[in-house]
Amino acid sequence: MLKVAIIGGSGYTGGELLRLLEQHPHVKIAAVTSERSKGKPISTLFPNLKSCRLKFESFKIRNIIKKADLFFLCLPHKTSQEAVAGLYKAGKKVIDLSADYRLKNASVYRKWYDIQHKYPALLKNAVYGLPELYRERIKCASIIANPGCYPTGAILGLAPIIKSAFIDSNSIIVDSKSGVSGAGRNPALPFMFSEVSGSVKAYAITIHRHTPEIEQELSIVSKKKIKINFTPHLIPMDRGILSTIYVKLNRKVNSTDINRIYKKFYANEPFVRVLTDNEYPNTKAVVGTNSCDIAMFVDKRKNSLIIVTVIDNLLKGASGQAVQNMNIMYEFDETTALKTASTYP
Amino acid sequence: MLKVAIIGGSGYTGGELLRLLEQHPHVKIAAVTSERSKGKPISTLFPNLKSCRLKFESFKIRNIIKKADLFFLCLPHKTSQEAVAGLYKAGKKVIDLSADYRLKNASVYRKWYDIQHKYPALLKNAVYGLPELYRERIKCASIIANPGCYPTGAILGLAPIIKSAFIDSNSIIVDSKSGVSGAGRNPALPFMFSEVSGSVKAYAITIHRHTPEIEQELSIVSKKKIKINFTPHLIPMDRGILSTIYVKLNRKVNSTDINRIYKKFYANEPFVRVLTDNEYPNTKAVVGTNSCDIAMFVDKRKNSLIIVTVIDNLLKGASGQAVQNMNIMYEFDETTALKTASTYP
Amino acid sequence: MLKVAIIGGSGYTGGELLRLLEQHPHVKIAAVTSERSKGKPISTLFPNLKSCRLKFESFKIRNIIKKADLFFLCLPHKTSQEAVAGLYKAGKKVIDLSADYRLKNASVYRKWYDIQHKYPALLKNAVYGLPELYRERIKCASIIANPGCYPTGAILGLAPIIKSAFIDSNSIIVDSKSGVSGAGRNPALPFMFSEVSGSVKAYAITIHRHTPEIEQELSIVSKKKIKINFTPHLIPMDRGILSTIYVKLNRKVNSTDINRIYKKFYANEPFVRVLTDNEYPNTKAVVGTNSCDIAMFVDKRKNSLIIVTVIDNLLKGASGQAVQNMNIMYEFDETTALKTASTYP
Amino acid sequence: MLKVAIIGGSGYTGGELLRLLEQHPHVKIAAVTSERSKGKPISTLFPNLKSCRLKFESFKIRNIIKKADLFFLCLPHKTSQEAVAGLYKAGKKVIDLSADYRLKNASVYRKWYDIQHKYPALLKNAVYGLPELYRERIKCASIIANPGCYPTGAILGLAPIIKSAFIDSNSIIVDSKSGVSGAGRNPALPFMFSEVSGSVKAYAITIHRHTPEIEQELSIVSKKKIKINFTPHLIPMDRGILSTIYVKLNRKVNSTDINRIYKKFYANEPFVRVLTDNEYPNTKAVVGTNSCDIAMFVDKRKNSLIIVTVIDNLLKGASGQAVQNMNIMYEFDETTALKTASTYP
Repeated sequence: MLKVAIIGGSGYTGGELLRLLEQHPHVKIAAVTSERSKGKPISTLFPNLKSCRLKFESFKIRNIIKKADLFFLCLPHKTSQEAVAGLYKAGKKVIDLSADYRLKNASVYRKWYDIQHKYPALLKNAVYGLPELYRERIKCASIIANPGCYPTGAILGLAPIIKSAFIDSNSIIVDSKSGVSGAGRNPALPFMFSEVSGSVKAYAITIHRHTPEIEQELSIVSKKKIKINFTPHLIPMDRGILSTIYVKLNRKVNSTDINRIYKKFYANEPFVRVLTDNEYPNTKAVVGTNSCDIAMFVDKRKNSLIIVTVIDNLLKGASGQAVQNMNIMYEFDETTALKTASTYP
Repeated sequence: MLKVAIIGGSGYTGGELLRLLEQHPHVKIAAVTSERSKGKPISTLFPNLKSCRLKFESFKIRNIIKKADLFFLCLPHKTSQEAVAGLYKAGKKVIDLSADYRLKNASVYRKWYDIQHKYPALLKNAVYGLPELYRERIKCASIIANPGCYPTGAILGLAPIIKSAFIDSNSIIVDSKSGVSGAGRNPALPFMFSEVSGSVKAYAITIHRHTPEIEQELSIVSKKKIKINFTPHLIPMDRGILSTIYVKLNRKVNSTDINRIYKKFYANEPFVRVLTDNEYPNTKAVVGTNSCDIAMFVDKRKNSLIIVTVIDNLLKGASGQAVQNMNIMYEFDETTALKTASTYP
Repeated sequence: MLKVAIIGGSGYTGGELLRLLEQHPHVKIAAVTSERSKGKPISTLFPNLKSCRLKFESFKIRNIIKKADLFFLCLPHKTSQEAVAGLYKAGKKVIDLSADYRLKNASVYRKWYDIQHKYPALLKNAVYGLPELYRERIKCASIIANPGCYPTGAILGLAPIIKSAFIDSNSIIVDSKSGVSGAGRNPALPFMFSEVSGSVKAYAITIHRHTPEIEQELSIVSKKKIKINFTPHLIPMDRGILSTIYVKLNRKVNSTDINRIYKKFYANEPFVRVLTDNEYPNTKAVVGTNSCDIAMFVDKRKNSLIIVTVIDNLLKGASGQAVQNMNIMYEFDETTALKTASTYP
Repeated sequence: MLKVAIIGGSGYTGGELLRLLEQHPHVKIAAVTSERSKGKPISTLFPNLKSCRLKFESFKIRNIIKKADLFFLCLPHKTSQEAVAGLYKAGKKVIDLSADYRLKNASVYRKWYDIQHKYPALLKNAVYGLPELYRERIKCASIIANPGCYPTGAILGLAPIIKSAFIDSNSIIVDSKSGVSGAGRNPALPFMFSEVSGSVKAYAITIHRHTPEIEQELSIVSKKKIKINFTPHLIPMDRGILSTIYVKLNRKVNSTDINRIYKKFYANEPFVRVLTDNEYPNTKAVVGTNSCDIAMFVDKRKNSLIIVTVIDNLLKGASGQAVQNMNIMYEFDETTALKTASTYP
């Protein structure tokens, strides 16, 4: 049994890790920490985990280090920097759900996160935990920088064609729509029910921190410097991200050709489903699962391509992907604890 | 492998049966019928079941009878009467999710459903499929009358104390709040998003057909003729039923005593969770599961008891309970395919 | 022009007062206070009031007292005690939206609110601001104790028959369902979108502070000591309260008789609509208005009466009623600024 | 008093017209028609209009033509063609909320709507009813082609800069998010509460019929042939459309410059509010009103412009704009019956 610990486990990503790992046949949750809730039973914060017998404890690195071999970190960025470094030095494996080790370039990190990275040398050791792109490297990684929710949907939507000669890689626009759980679990006025319900708004236009993360990965795959427009929106629903991606085409292609490229690219992927060209992705079909559904549409009048992806922001966009990464690292079947179909409706 | 068929499988209860049975290790779904959608792949109606390879077929009893041993019926009442009788005569086992075989008394059925029962003699063969009350009889039943959604929450909330001398069994009021999926999947104006969203209403006051079903079961358990007030409400949410039950107390008792009675009554039940007295049941904690959470509160000022139960109307209130009944009938572990914790949020 | 001030105006009731009073032809809003938001334009907190040119200021009684003649107080209970007393002594008129002057009996207040009332002698000067019961006294009141949201719906539902010999006034149960705005605007985990969405729960069972308020008013009208069961529920919607009220009947009456009593009782009321017996009240029909819709149903099988009322908790349940009270006090047409029909859907 | 009739008044746009026109001091509603609901009181279909004494009648042009001078048509496209022509020939004024007279080019109409226009000669008589562009022509129009909901938000967002040399008019992408009431009031599975709730999806990608309408108006304003990408999305909310519009910039400009252009363009418009550059439009701020809020953001990294507009799809996007057009045609104050601020939350 693999012993794991969840650091900062009282938020939504922590809750989903608990739920998934409790069902995992090869894993034992050795510790869950939360400074604010230390001493409380897990079930007081997660009414869906009534049978869970664990309690939150305080995160003291010296105590906790002996308890587990793999650490899931659900800490805010900046705090996570330190914790990852400490655990790494102690020879532990880490899956970091924060943004702290995702950007390879410390100066890009500094620009977008407004702080200096204290362990820039460690950045190159971290593997960006998107299995569809980095499965081999994940297998032997010590530090997994688990991707952001928006980047997961955007990168999976673009990876199959970003290298292609028939798109204009300079024209990419990602317009994303997210459920409210993406904002985390800390009480704040803009995410109160009565403020959000029955309403939609855009936010962080031109300045969202997931922008450089998407650009980094698209640049790596395409071997070109790519910049994008990215606009996130807040939707009155708990979970789910739908990303509508616009790309200019350099030449005439049809939907069937594009579809074939995607089908091939994701042929062996357990969690990516390429829809045939008349089906519209719907977050309701993926919420509660680790799947990403993708559909693509050619606009012949404009000679452009519209790609739509949907994921569950807390699963494929966070904790599900973290468990998928763990499964890969420890050579468990990659779908272990991640097979459930979602309920409908 | 047990071969099962789902008759009338294009609605929400059919979809949940499909989802649950696909994960069941001892079951093979041999056929799914739908008159309206015959020929269509399952996945066109259930976007969450993309990997399901089945297609809807038409329900012809002669053809289908050879395909399966157990039949789940998700037909409208009245239509179900006939189908149950036909399958029963052919020696098949049936779990009927309609109301047609729930009421033991054909004249009560006639009064509330406005039609004559054509197979009154069969009523006594049908076992009311509430495992917490009838587990032994379910084991050898041929026809299971799977309980209604409201009755499940109401009866589980009252069963432990209905026989007790310290309540006034004549004073019971059940005030229930249900998600919209309880109304089924047929398009109708009152259940359109824009009509329901942001709104609550009561309906079928004094005339809801689940009333005699609740009364029948409470009367059987208590060995007294019991009548209740029952008022259902429509809540702007997909799933879940919360029932608030009011009962007068004949003598002074406190919450701890009541709690003890419930804990004892449900001590060995895998799907009933008796909350300790300060926790309020929340549908969000049970949606996606087969669990029923129950809490009880004594109002000392009024010498009355308030019991609150929550279930998922499509699972413990319909398809989950149907699978639980199947597990009992075929001596599978009772929780097979029903163990998942729900997502949160 | 009547000069008014709103004290504690940054919450939802403050926002609704601002919206209503800005449209009022005989009123000038002279000041709006908020300690937390002082200096900020109103529109930064209320995106619907973009054209409003006012700014929040700090509440200093000496400064503000000269600015206005009538003061709307949207302060938390306890804080309001002091403010009401200060304004009253300065000869000002006050409409207090807090609970501080609603309970006539200081020891009942102490029991339910856990604090001592510092101005018990003032309680008898305060008029309970429910126009349907106290219109004449409101006309010359100096202090209006504006009713709570749940009490408004409950009392209006019971007032016409509470004196009647054919009901058992000892049997009253009020089961209420409220939108989330009733919890106020302070950020707190239980009212975050992702916690509330898609879910229903009961809360404060047997201990909600609106209980003695309902009991006081029913006792006054009926001239009997009345105690009730009251259970509030949280519904995933912004606004609206639906109350389902259960009463035992002492003799046989039918719905038509009951309906006639209600029609007569509310014959001249501009904001109470008695529905005919087959229409179910729906919060969507009253949200955005100052109306209360009432319907009544006799359950012949149980010889009991079910009354359903719906209001907008922020309008008839708070700010709308406050403006109605002001209209009465200053002899404006009672419906001024309150006539709008709600949007649908 | 102007006598008006509403033809096809049982849907959501009909309901909003009824609500607005009932409050209008210079208008008398002479007739409301609905084939499906003829004979029924208005209030049975619109619970918010309980005090309305009108009944639906059947639409017989000979009878109805004498009753009113101005006709609001809320008919499906194709049906509306005929009705407009008939009323026009009878010398009546018409505000047509369908799409039938919006496209000036009958062959474009045929291509997108799959039917032949039977009165192509009438198209040139119809004025596109967007007051911000066509106020003068609206004053003396006989037929108003009331704009579509998506086009209203898109065109208002682009009109001030579409002629400008610093944008690439070939690069326009409109990504719109709409509430469910935009789909109308006819019961259909995709718009049932349980299908839509908690979910977002794109639809009609590359093929939505509002595309040529947006293109036509942008082409007229800019005097260039303009084609756009347009993608609509369905959001789990009743009302509101948010459009996120992407345009490439040909030269460096900053947000302040852009803001100044918009402020100037809309300086005298009663229903367009240009937000200052750090405020994000929110549908909640305009729902229930006839306002359009607009904000613009320059993405310096990509040298592109992002414009965000929000409207209420049933008001500025349909019935509110229709009443605004009527006010202009009959020289009433343009804001009559349209001044209300929305409730919040």
